[in-house]
Amino acid sequence: MRFTVLVDISLRSGISDPAGATIERALPVLGYAGIEGVTVGKTIRFTLDAVDADAARQVAGDLTESFLTNPVIEDAVVTVEPA
Amino acid sequence: MRFTVLVDISLRSGISDPAGATIERALPVLGYAGIEGVTVGKTIRFTLDAVDADAARQVAGDLTESFLTNPVIEDAVVTVEPA
Repeated sequence: MRFTVLVDISLRSGISDPAGATIERALPVLGYAGIEGVTVGKTIRFTLDAVDADAARQVAGDLTESFLTNPVIEDAVVTVEPA
Repeated sequence: MRFTVLVDISLRSGISDPAGATIERALPVLGYAGIEGVTVGKTIRFTLDAVDADAARQVAGDLTESFLTNPVIEDAVVTVEPA
């Protein structure tokens, strides 16, 4: 079976987010008020062949922990759906 | 009212994605087979003050088109929810 995987990666709370801070600082000058807590993360999407949804979740989770994220500074939410 | 906004940004189809291609090329060597179509995108999250959900969606959409994305090469999906 074929599955689509979304890995939604964000910085752990407490880790400095210079890209988000830069956007937040610029917004009032650009005419946008009332915006706070800007954070920037990344997403990795792919399709995966696996025998069933459990196997797909296992492979996607392993891959995410091993190679797609740095668990010291990043959190990841992995979503697996039938393609 | 306070709203949380998620801007999910991905490269438009047809636009070269070197980060995704590099990950996809590395995976077989790392022991992961059957993974295809790897793409890398980014997310921007923030909270926004607005009078109602429509106003929040309007502001978030304007901001996304004007400053958070490059519409020539990027697509964005904006999700607005009550905080």
